[in-house]
Amino acid sequence: MAEAVRHDKTARQLRLLSDALDTGRLGPVRRLVNTLSPAEIGNLLESLPPAKRAIVWGLVDPEDDGEVLVHVGEDVRESLLAEMDPDEIVAAVGDLDIDDLAELAEDLPDTVIDEVLKSMDRENRERLEQVLSYPEDTAGRLMDPDVITVRTDVTVDVVLRYLRLRGEIPDHTDHLFVVSRRHQYLGRISIAALLTHSPSTPINELFDDEQPAIPVDTPADEVASLFSDHDWISAPVVDENNILLGRITIDDVVDIIREQAEHQALSAAGLDEDEDMFSPVPRAAWRRLPWLAINLATAFLAASVVGRFEDTIEKIVALAVLMPIVAGMGGNAGTQVLALMVRGLALGQVSRANAALLLWKETRVAVLNGLALGAILALVVWLWFGDWQLSAVIFAALVANLLFASLAGVLVPLTLKRLGFDPALASSIFLTTVTDVMGFFCFLGLATLVLLG
Amino acid sequence: MAEAVRHDKTARQLRLLSDALDTGRLGPVRRLVNTLSPAEIGNLLESLPPAKRAIVWGLVDPEDDGEVLVHVGEDVRESLLAEMDPDEIVAAVGDLDIDDLAELAEDLPDTVIDEVLKSMDRENRERLEQVLSYPEDTAGRLMDPDVITVRTDVTVDVVLRYLRLRGEIPDHTDHLFVVSRRHQYLGRISIAALLTHSPSTPINELFDDEQPAIPVDTPADEVASLFSDHDWISAPVVDENNILLGRITIDDVVDIIREQAEHQALSAAGLDEDEDMFSPVPRAAWRRLPWLAINLATAFLAASVVGRFEDTIEKIVALAVLMPIVAGMGGNAGTQVLALMVRGLALGQVSRANAALLLWKETRVAVLNGLALGAILALVVWLWFGDWQLSAVIFAALVANLLFASLAGVLVPLTLKRLGFDPALASSIFLTTVTDVMGFFCFLGLATLVLLG
Repeated sequence: MAEAVRHDKTARQLRLLSDALDTGRLGPVRRLVNTLSPAEIGNLLESLPPAKRAIVWGLVDPEDDGEVLVHVGEDVRESLLAEMDPDEIVAAVGDLDIDDLAELAEDLPDTVIDEVLKSMDRENRERLEQVLSYPEDTAGRLMDPDVITVRTDVTVDVVLRYLRLRGEIPDHTDHLFVVSRRHQYLGRISIAALLTHSPSTPINELFDDEQPAIPVDTPADEVASLFSDHDWISAPVVDENNILLGRITIDDVVDIIREQAEHQALSAAGLDEDEDMFSPVPRAAWRRLPWLAINLATAFLAASVVGRFEDTIEKIVALAVLMPIVAGMGGNAGTQVLALMVRGLALGQVSRANAALLLWKETRVAVLNGLALGAILALVVWLWFGDWQLSAVIFAALVANLLFASLAGVLVPLTLKRLGFDPALASSIFLTTVTDVMGFFCFLGLATLVLLG
Repeated sequence: MAEAVRHDKTARQLRLLSDALDTGRLGPVRRLVNTLSPAEIGNLLESLPPAKRAIVWGLVDPEDDGEVLVHVGEDVRESLLAEMDPDEIVAAVGDLDIDDLAELAEDLPDTVIDEVLKSMDRENRERLEQVLSYPEDTAGRLMDPDVITVRTDVTVDVVLRYLRLRGEIPDHTDHLFVVSRRHQYLGRISIAALLTHSPSTPINELFDDEQPAIPVDTPADEVASLFSDHDWISAPVVDENNILLGRITIDDVVDIIREQAEHQALSAAGLDEDEDMFSPVPRAAWRRLPWLAINLATAFLAASVVGRFEDTIEKIVALAVLMPIVAGMGGNAGTQVLALMVRGLALGQVSRANAALLLWKETRVAVLNGLALGAILALVVWLWFGDWQLSAVIFAALVANLLFASLAGVLVPLTLKRLGFDPALASSIFLTTVTDVMGFFCFLGLATLVLLG
């Protein structure tokens, strides 16, 4: 697996660091840490237990402190901020770009934010306040208001001279944005075009007015899709009057995509992607409890179904031995359908337009695999218990439960989505409730009818 | 949820398209399709059932065919290629960049590849053959050999004039690469530096010799981490002698990150990320069968444990009613630990250096939640069956099984990783085997000792 090497690389750093920390000689630790990028330092801090984390955090070059804070999850950020004086925090975050500062703002103490605002010039203060006025996870919150704009009535030469005069160009500037006198977004001009055209060419003739701007209220993950569907490096953000407010760059989009993936993986287990691997035990336990409690409630539901058939089980104990197989296989088959559906929903590939077709396809897949697995199961049960009627019952129950599993696998995430819930979060609980309840009911019900009938 | 809007946008297109297809009037469909980017068309094709997919594919502008093929999963690609003549395929892929062509190469018929190679000039043919000589999922396979290089002994002015002469700059060119006479990679110079410095400045004084190049055999996901840790737009790829071979750009990295996320989500259910949502039923069933068969085998293992206690269950049927709760809760708690571990391993945050600490933390979390959930469970069981001994047994069994669950949640993925397997793929099967077997064993074993002892 390719993944192994990435793992080995960070893991090697982690081991070196742990060994150095254990010896207590901090010089080598400091040198190691300060060869890393802020994102790598963040990654390393997240993988350290609290005591070592605090030591390493103290060794990070103060110049990198702000960037490192941007690159860690909320829980870890909180633990790092707890180690800092207000003055240190102000110094650390004061030099950040507006978009990074906006991302941190919610986790900073109010006094620190006031200090930071006071230390800024008026233009930057107003920009930060503007960015903070947009809801989290929207384009407005992701954008950096520091944008280079040009007007249509100048030539390439004028722009080039302006850039030289400016002396600094923000990172990830692949395009300059062309605006009207009233700062309305008109289009963009690529740096490449500036470089390859004659200096006397008017911007007018060169600029691309086809790239749409991103409305300021666009949700973060739609921003991410736009970037990856169009291979953008940067894109303009506008308000409802098409006034250019700022721009979003690919580095932030990459972070969003990574966070989405983590969210999807962790929320399926009822966890938050900001969870610190080393969060304090009572807090970790407390956070996991609600999901487990809901699962306990659904387990009681399934158990109550089994409870209805106590008389049957008393007469044929083999049923108790075999019933978890029928329920479990339903859960497994349903999980496969669910995984495809959750991906399809996240990519926008599943909707009412094709849901019926998917259901029909999954039903047929369930029948085929039900027949195949049911045959194996029936054979083993016959060899084990020597009762062909029991074999027939478990065969039928398995086929039936795989059908219910495919139904639930398709319909549960669609229904949750339509009701406004995150299908990645709650689908699996509902799915296994269906497959447990129906698995026990079909198997024990059929057994009661056939074997005791 | 933010996700809803993205979904709604693609879903809206999908619905419009489906409606238009149903009316049979293809003009509006063609117009709608050709307003989309190739990636969006690919997304839409993936969400259509085979018959409609073929119709829409026929309406795509032939100029976009190649790019669309790059943007769909392998299964769907195969179905699209099946609709094309060899001549059409050659025309579609002939204009692609070398890195895109390399990505498609494995899915193209040999005759088509020969034709494409024949239609290329010698330089491009050699480049393609070189890229194809590197293993899949390495930097060599991702790179585009078309790179603008400059030498140290020229001035900014010379470079600017060269670019103007060249007339075209590849997409995503934020840096030019500085090479020696023997084409060894020396460093990079940003386009921004070219724009903001005096034309007479020698490249010598401007270029950045700190960015390391990516070795050609670097695994794809390490490439992705490097890009996201350093906010790169493009990066140079070199061979073992530091000769510059090509460059990788952020757009390909974004695709890798998305694919990794899909791989992780789907492989946990024993599925492949290239799975077509509408793949033919027998094929879909056949592909899902191995994972289900392995789960069936582990279910037999758990059932055989229950089988050992038939006599006990015969005497106390309530045990059959309650045993799935103990097993299931272990599975749920273990899944939470597993989700955190799989993320930690993927990010390189978990290794031998901190595994023992994580295990210790998870053990304590398991005890806390075991006590809390066990208390609820024991209370409900006492209310249900009125037997405090049974309550005590299920309490102890639940605490024990949550402990086994946390052990398995930490150790199973670590062990799989060390043995060279993908922890995202097989962990959950091993985990639930442990929690089922130990859940049944602890509960029924304790019940036998305490209630029948």
